[in-house]
Amino acid sequence: MDADAYIKSQAELIEKAVHAELPPEPKEVYGMLGEYISRGGKRIRPVLALASCSACGGEESTVLPFAVAIELFHNFTLIHDDIEDSSPMRRGRPTLHIEYGIPIAINSGDALYNLVWHSLVRNAEPELLSGGAGILISSFRAVAEGQGRELNWYREKRFDVGEEEYLRMVGGKTASLIGASCEIGAYCAGAGMVERDALRTFGEKIGLAFQIKDDVLNLTADPSKYKKKIGEDIDEGKRSLITIHLIANSPPQVRRRVIGILGKGKKSAADVRETIGLAQECGSIRYASDYAERLVRDAKASLEAVEAGAGRGLMDSLADYIVRREK
Amino acid sequence: MDADAYIKSQAELIEKAVHAELPPEPKEVYGMLGEYISRGGKRIRPVLALASCSACGGEESTVLPFAVAIELFHNFTLIHDDIEDSSPMRRGRPTLHIEYGIPIAINSGDALYNLVWHSLVRNAEPELLSGGAGILISSFRAVAEGQGRELNWYREKRFDVGEEEYLRMVGGKTASLIGASCEIGAYCAGAGMVERDALRTFGEKIGLAFQIKDDVLNLTADPSKYKKKIGEDIDEGKRSLITIHLIANSPPQVRRRVIGILGKGKKSAADVRETIGLAQECGSIRYASDYAERLVRDAKASLEAVEAGAGRGLMDSLADYIVRREK
Repeated sequence: MDADAYIKSQAELIEKAVHAELPPEPKEVYGMLGEYISRGGKRIRPVLALASCSACGGEESTVLPFAVAIELFHNFTLIHDDIEDSSPMRRGRPTLHIEYGIPIAINSGDALYNLVWHSLVRNAEPELLSGGAGILISSFRAVAEGQGRELNWYREKRFDVGEEEYLRMVGGKTASLIGASCEIGAYCAGAGMVERDALRTFGEKIGLAFQIKDDVLNLTADPSKYKKKIGEDIDEGKRSLITIHLIANSPPQVRRRVIGILGKGKKSAADVRETIGLAQECGSIRYASDYAERLVRDAKASLEAVEAGAGRGLMDSLADYIVRREK
Repeated sequence: MDADAYIKSQAELIEKAVHAELPPEPKEVYGMLGEYISRGGKRIRPVLALASCSACGGEESTVLPFAVAIELFHNFTLIHDDIEDSSPMRRGRPTLHIEYGIPIAINSGDALYNLVWHSLVRNAEPELLSGGAGILISSFRAVAEGQGRELNWYREKRFDVGEEEYLRMVGGKTASLIGASCEIGAYCAGAGMVERDALRTFGEKIGLAFQIKDDVLNLTADPSKYKKKIGEDIDEGKRSLITIHLIANSPPQVRRRVIGILGKGKKSAADVRETIGLAQECGSIRYASDYAERLVRDAKASLEAVEAGAGRGLMDSLADYIVRREK
């Protein structure tokens, strides 16, 4: 089965399992969460958890409660991130804080995070709970720590972020949860530490690649296929591998110009076009694309040393999907 | 030992155990949490967990990880509640969102909630983890649900909240975590369901009494002893047992006046004084005080049917502390 078909069929299974965790009452808390989660998303994290479990010879049903918990957690982070980034839209609809106000959106996010643990304690096999919760909680911590580092760059108006510092931030904010998704699959399959580490490394590398590819798409995607606004990251003044490369590798006057645009409050369409053009000229978009592809190659290589059963071909094609996608 | 001395000595133990759970890095995430938690607070929830465990003949060390988790959770809810209620001050210092902005305050709250689970998974005895986590998670859910109900009243500008509806909201937002604090003590002591239920009921009743007493103090406390501004709840338009009694039991023109004051944006000092005066005249403050005292009597009675060892006297004096305190 190719990656697209596999993702599609597993996403349906996850969809159903996720919705089963949402309580019916009180509607003023959980009603909006059902609608929010129904908006879709790639479900790439729980899909990777299921695939990793299979690849290590395990039964998918053992990892499903953890996969569901990871997807619930991911949605919780989106709700809060959208408030923190003042994002108006999510998956084609207004973000929850735009629709219900910041107080209710914060609280519904918290209620969703409660369901992460509620569902885990209720559904995970007791002998897997403590170890599996340990894997998840380490990555949950890393997510908040990565987000905290990024928010602090905004607060301090920092544009001198280096590549290593940037990768550590994304390593926490995005890659750690994808790494945990893969490791938890191996763990539930009863794999040993060598295999668990290999799967986590695989996940972390494709997780980094996923974010970098996201940033590339944000500046270069085909508008007819892409759901967000092209150049929205420039609007938000976001630090990415692209802007970091551009700032570090352009002549002083270009650098000042780029920092000037990224740092100002409201950007014009011309500002956004100009920045994308400069990133093209400086080779920064190429640099980021190549970086993501290299990460995917490294990710696949990290699985070579371990037994991964019939699922190795699937894991490889999921890794390729990360850099191949157009939206 | 009397309640004050007991609370003081146990709070020191808890203080130390709570701070041991805060990671040193990254400072931009955890630094502010250490400062925030150090601001103090009554630590009444973890103290009750330790006392309940003793009262049921258990070893306090078994419940300590859960007590710490409860205190971390409580502080997390304060950070988010203060954003949701636009509160400028907490324990004599600016709230985190005032000091660091809403985005960082939301994320640091989330990071603190991560530590709840991180500390539990690391420190709880494995055979107590799953059952204990179940007790906690039920109350965490109830807290967010209660908060969601209250936020929705503000959003819908509702002043027709009935007493039963109000008690259900506070039952979730405040009483459930205090109930869980007492139940978890019994659980860790190896008590059976009858004793656990009795302790939870005890905690829920004193939890309700705690909130009602808080609301009474907010309007009537001696300003030289009270840390908050007298009448701040009126400023915030808060629904309480007092305002609900006042609205339900006053003549139409007084009712309209009270709703007019509570519902308007900015209240004058005269508005606040007038509302407090009307609540005195209508007997609403007396009604709430009596209600809290009755709850404390009921709480104590709920322990009569169960064995509670040497700690019964202590539990009674902790219950009395709730309605006796002046700040």
